[in-house]
Amino acid sequence: MKIQGKHYRSIWVNPNDPRQIQTFDQRKIPFQITIETWTSYKDAVIAIKEMHVRGAPLIGVSGAYGLYLATLEAPSENPLPFLEKAKNELENARPTAVNLSWAVNKVWNVIKNLRSIEDMRATALAMANQLADEDVKMCKRIGEAGLPLIEEIYARTGKPVNILTHCNAGWIATIDYGTITAPIYMAHRKGIPVHVWVSETRPRNQGSRITAWELGEEGVPHTVIADNASGLIIQEGKVDIVLVGADRVVRNGDTANKIGTLMKAVVAHEYGIPFYVALPSSTFDPSLDIGSQIPIEVRSEDEVLYTEGWINDDINRVRVAPFNSHAYNPAFDVTPAKFITGYITDKGVLTAEQLHTLVEKGIKTV
Amino acid sequence: MKIQGKHYRSIWVNPNDPRQIQTFDQRKIPFQITIETWTSYKDAVIAIKEMHVRGAPLIGVSGAYGLYLATLEAPSENPLPFLEKAKNELENARPTAVNLSWAVNKVWNVIKNLRSIEDMRATALAMANQLADEDVKMCKRIGEAGLPLIEEIYARTGKPVNILTHCNAGWIATIDYGTITAPIYMAHRKGIPVHVWVSETRPRNQGSRITAWELGEEGVPHTVIADNASGLIIQEGKVDIVLVGADRVVRNGDTANKIGTLMKAVVAHEYGIPFYVALPSSTFDPSLDIGSQIPIEVRSEDEVLYTEGWINDDINRVRVAPFNSHAYNPAFDVTPAKFITGYITDKGVLTAEQLHTLVEKGIKTV
Repeated sequence: MKIQGKHYRSIWVNPNDPRQIQTFDQRKIPFQITIETWTSYKDAVIAIKEMHVRGAPLIGVSGAYGLYLATLEAPSENPLPFLEKAKNELENARPTAVNLSWAVNKVWNVIKNLRSIEDMRATALAMANQLADEDVKMCKRIGEAGLPLIEEIYARTGKPVNILTHCNAGWIATIDYGTITAPIYMAHRKGIPVHVWVSETRPRNQGSRITAWELGEEGVPHTVIADNASGLIIQEGKVDIVLVGADRVVRNGDTANKIGTLMKAVVAHEYGIPFYVALPSSTFDPSLDIGSQIPIEVRSEDEVLYTEGWINDDINRVRVAPFNSHAYNPAFDVTPAKFITGYITDKGVLTAEQLHTLVEKGIKTV
Repeated sequence: MKIQGKHYRSIWVNPNDPRQIQTFDQRKIPFQITIETWTSYKDAVIAIKEMHVRGAPLIGVSGAYGLYLATLEAPSENPLPFLEKAKNELENARPTAVNLSWAVNKVWNVIKNLRSIEDMRATALAMANQLADEDVKMCKRIGEAGLPLIEEIYARTGKPVNILTHCNAGWIATIDYGTITAPIYMAHRKGIPVHVWVSETRPRNQGSRITAWELGEEGVPHTVIADNASGLIIQEGKVDIVLVGADRVVRNGDTANKIGTLMKAVVAHEYGIPFYVALPSSTFDPSLDIGSQIPIEVRSEDEVLYTEGWINDDINRVRVAPFNSHAYNPAFDVTPAKFITGYITDKGVLTAEQLHTLVEKGIKTV
């Protein structure tokens, strides 16, 4: 998608030097946009560890490109010990990121059996590129599945379609398009008037910082709101559809997503507003039956006690609670399937039942 | 209530010099607590205008004490022109604060008919003190009405009572006790174990900044949460009762309160958690039938685009949204009566029906 009028993916091979990988240092988005260049797998490890790159799909592809960089650095004679060390470092840069370990091992399991370092290099690059391309295709399919929902509202009302979002499941967390943003970008490019309510998403403000920036760069009309204002705008009829992402969807359709999703779903249900979860089918988790089995990650209380933002030409944090108060900071909540109108996936828009049936049939998961 | 172990009201006559009024400059709470001394009505005007003092009851009493200070400054001969000018300045320091105009005029309408400046001084002081005392009594009655709700939960569960709050309707916004905090302070002082979930209350963070500070100074166990986490803790059974304040309650019980109240009420209703509104009976508004008639104040978008907090030994604000994004900042929402379990008032705990009946009987309102 666009940044300052130019089209980008979130990660790419430097067209002027295929021995370099380029990406954005996302830590200062939206206040400062910096392209960084990786010339060593160590650069990828640091970028993943220190969250220059974020979002499960992008982290996975970053790991794969990191292993490609390692093949460029490995000795021609007996490269495997070097590569295995690099693989381990990459895979452990964010231990909880399932996509990372999956992507790095996918490349590793192929290249470790190849004979020459040249083959390893060519194969690692091709596989990393393919992972990136597949993610773009996945997001485009989600976009194509969700687009008719927006078109239908516009056809019915003839007015700009008001979409409420939460957090960021946008293109910069994937390779391109994003998940919940894909149908929005496609509708906008097709000339359907859309307006996006961007919920701030405390405590980390991924909505106001990342989603609002993405939409602005792409020229999509949007308005930031405090998370607290979501209820009022739903009640007042200012929202036609709610679109959120998902960290995990279990067999019965219960959905773990960024903290605050549950409240939006309950209120949307109360006021009869459709509430859709957009997700790649790899986010299905058939190993759990119901949402209450999903463990909730509790993060540092400092994310609540402070707010991070731009001041004095840098990111800084301000204290927003008394120095001797404490906070509880669950990162996710679980929305029961009964509040979810449907699931926008690369296999189409599904109900919880259809999702379950697909899972029964044995969709391949990460 | 207590600050640093010492009991205070939020405003008082200097015991060492009855020609001075003292209060807290609340702008830097909880990071810096400063007592300020007013020696002229102009000091009161500035304090009200620049929000050193906040909260409808405190602003009203501040205006009354301001007019008392004016009587000390007025010439003995023909004091009324000076006093009328002071009255107008005080009353217009915050034009939307109904309590301010009401309190200032209450004093003015009496003293303007008195003969001597000495009588005016003595009467203005007595009336301002009385307004303060009446507010304290009102809050204590709310506390006594709400206390049994907390006692009942404790008697039933034998465990610390978990209370979820929103925004600040605490003692520092009144003269003492507060409205929603009054039952909490009384329970705590009675030895009933309570724990308060303090919802941050973006965009102005009155929860994390003021309520958390009040509770901490009084020694009440509490935990700050992002507003987004309210749904999860209700769903997980970590909340026994929700207590919020009210800016206006209309005939059918619909309640305007700080933005975000509606979402908590809908989610509490969904999960069967009691949701109470605490209010002085003066907050009843029999002039409106239903909540949709209440105008919603929309405040500056900057409150959403920035977050204010403590950094570099001062209050500063950090930008939390892209420089070219805009925000929508409604200050209040309206919770339909069907989501409200009851109203904790100085007349007892009432249902919407009882509230309506009392209003029919013609309760005096501000």
